[in-house]
Amino acid sequence: MTKPIWIIHANQLTTLASNHKGPRIGKAMSDLAIIEDGSLWIEKGVIEAIGTTQELAKDFADRLEEAEIVDASNHLVTPGLIDPHTHVVYAGSREKEFEMRLEGATYMEIMNAGGGIHATTRMTREATEVEIMEQTFIRLDSFLQHGVTTVEGKSGYGMDLETELKQLRVMKKLQKQHPIDLIPTFMGAHAVPPEYKGKEDEYVDTLIHEWLPIIAKEKLAVFNDVFCEKGVFTPEQSERILEAGKKWGLVPKIHADEIEAYGGAELAAQVGAISAEHLLKATDEGIEKMAEAGVIACLLPATALYLREEAAEGRKMIDAGVPVAISTDCNPGSSPTTSMPLVMNLACITMRLTPAEALTAATFNAACAIKCEHLVGSLEVGKQADIVMWNVKDYRELQYLFGVNHVKAVWKKGIQVVDRGE
Amino acid sequence: MTKPIWIIHANQLTTLASNHKGPRIGKAMSDLAIIEDGSLWIEKGVIEAIGTTQELAKDFADRLEEAEIVDASNHLVTPGLIDPHTHVVYAGSREKEFEMRLEGATYMEIMNAGGGIHATTRMTREATEVEIMEQTFIRLDSFLQHGVTTVEGKSGYGMDLETELKQLRVMKKLQKQHPIDLIPTFMGAHAVPPEYKGKEDEYVDTLIHEWLPIIAKEKLAVFNDVFCEKGVFTPEQSERILEAGKKWGLVPKIHADEIEAYGGAELAAQVGAISAEHLLKATDEGIEKMAEAGVIACLLPATALYLREEAAEGRKMIDAGVPVAISTDCNPGSSPTTSMPLVMNLACITMRLTPAEALTAATFNAACAIKCEHLVGSLEVGKQADIVMWNVKDYRELQYLFGVNHVKAVWKKGIQVVDRGE
Ligand SMILES: [Zn+2]
Ligand SMILES: [Zn+2]
Repeated sequence: MTKPIWIIHANQLTTLASNHKGPRIGKAMSDLAIIEDGSLWIEKGVIEAIGTTQELAKDFADRLEEAEIVDASNHLVTPGLIDPHTHVVYAGSREKEFEMRLEGATYMEIMNAGGGIHATTRMTREATEVEIMEQTFIRLDSFLQHGVTTVEGKSGYGMDLETELKQLRVMKKLQKQHPIDLIPTFMGAHAVPPEYKGKEDEYVDTLIHEWLPIIAKEKLAVFNDVFCEKGVFTPEQSERILEAGKKWGLVPKIHADEIEAYGGAELAAQVGAISAEHLLKATDEGIEKMAEAGVIACLLPATALYLREEAAEGRKMIDAGVPVAISTDCNPGSSPTTSMPLVMNLACITMRLTPAEALTAATFNAACAIKCEHLVGSLEVGKQADIVMWNVKDYRELQYLFGVNHVKAVWKKGIQVVDRGE
Repeated sequence: MTKPIWIIHANQLTTLASNHKGPRIGKAMSDLAIIEDGSLWIEKGVIEAIGTTQELAKDFADRLEEAEIVDASNHLVTPGLIDPHTHVVYAGSREKEFEMRLEGATYMEIMNAGGGIHATTRMTREATEVEIMEQTFIRLDSFLQHGVTTVEGKSGYGMDLETELKQLRVMKKLQKQHPIDLIPTFMGAHAVPPEYKGKEDEYVDTLIHEWLPIIAKEKLAVFNDVFCEKGVFTPEQSERILEAGKKWGLVPKIHADEIEAYGGAELAAQVGAISAEHLLKATDEGIEKMAEAGVIACLLPATALYLREEAAEGRKMIDAGVPVAISTDCNPGSSPTTSMPLVMNLACITMRLTPAEALTAATFNAACAIKCEHLVGSLEVGKQADIVMWNVKDYRELQYLFGVNHVKAVWKKGIQVVDRGE
């Protein structure tokens, strides 16, 4: 029988607890519900009690000797971070393309050398399930080292049924094998596969009539995502795909307005998407509609940095009443990183979120964006004991002392899975 | 007696060895002099031999059993990183100011709340030598965890003689107590202290006639640096300070053209500075003069990011024949970070350096910027065994997989000081 864990004396325990149910909006994003000299009692992977160290010492007076005590003096303790948007399941690596680009190669030269998204598609199609699992496992380990305990993952490097299923099945297996919770999204509409160039509507039909039913029946995905962008899928095609998914119980997500304003934010509101992603070029009207419909803006400042784009207007969106979440967008082309701590830093530096808002965006609101907020995203009685202890005392230091992974220890469902001992 | 260390089977051993003496310029910045299946023999803290594993196995055939073997299979091995520009020696923390700014406070409101550089000056003046040492020690540990084995550090948070001496003495003591080599720079001319507002020339005179002689005689600094910027020190004042330092044997450095083009790059060339720093707004003419004079451009892309400025034109400078080094600029106001790996990533992402150039800029050229290239900055026989083993196979991955600290192990003078075991 595993011992209970008693975490004591956290300098700041940011619980993010609230009576409010949905994602945090506006001023509520700044409320971390901090307990000073905070304490948690964890049993069977679940948070049994939360309060000050003194309160818990009293409440558990007759059981203190059973517990494994973790002294969090001088440390910040937060919920495990949540990454609500990744393409983490893929094969191969594209560091040579990265170098080529910096050496001055053009887009066409890289394409001709076999680079770009279709390189990853090719490598993912060719790889065995085991190979993809092994490569993804390493990335999930890195997420864990960076304090991330739940990760959304998308298919979309297959764009043929076999490979899409392979990616989704890899996630299902990894969910059992890796401590991180992996939430699957079907994204057959990630790009137009070369075979369907000029026959986009035919691809959309195939996806809707042949693939979605199989994926839904096998329960391989929770969400259905589409890349709505000029030259990829139109708002009309995107709407068809998302509405079809809804009939199968798949919740819509949408890659929207990344490269140009294309009505993606508006469409997200219209179809009732749980979240819209990127939004670098979202219009004021789109932002307003998202606020009205309660669509979560899932913002990806590491991608913007890597592509040298202006980051999304996170500050403006929060002020307009849009609930904001943040994510790595982990993928081999435009954001090969697993660092949610860096993403929080960038949310402050490049999108002008405050330190508290950045933490909310990486925990509770991120949980809402993948519909896990009943289990994770805040520290409350009955929730999963997904917890990070940091090498800083104050939540503000987490963002101020930037570019450094301040994680000291991570617990997933009450089991310590990371000890960086620094 | 300590055992020799034999590092074997490095997938890539980037030696950066060259017959050329000075900093690497132009195409030479791309030449990492890589040995595949590379090997190093280390004895008494010094590199005794370098070559392929097969070569060293032959050369040391009769001594192999003495050695501690480090298997670097599938790992990249590089020289220890060098940070040639930091303000790492200070007291206090300004995370509340960071939050205030993001909450919309103006510059004046922050100043009135006791923020800005003068906050650090006040805290550094008030702190004891021991307090400053303790706080700096923690930052140096973090540098080491990020693969940095040599760090330049500046005074300049005193701007009174007592505190300037205190900062420089702290560095002298830390040089003995911490594994990192700490190279001291006097920077009394970091800002105009409040006491001298409107009497800048008087401050310059005091610095030249009273402080410089004391610092030089006590051998507390190698370099003499000045913040040449409109509203701080003019090019004329900067020149006087740097020329005066030269008479005392202090090598000039100059914070140049950060906020506006102000003739700083030109002045660096004129006074024969070893390096010019920041250079965000350097003119083409200034760049040309630096190239002619061989002044190293010490570029600080993390600072540019943190301040939301366009990064310096690193690509253009390399193409113009300026030797480029990169640095964290670690300081509590505009760049509170210790991550040279992130700085390398940003050099690629925001300044368009190639992965090889970024590594040269963070090792050999950085060593040249602090005149340590005879000891460190490349892996060559007779040099200090300052070595990093990375959790990647290829130097390109180091920059491509960004935002993550890929350090696996660090040796300083042949002693393993970091083992991240991931
Ligand atoms: Zn995406
Ligand atoms: Zn500086």
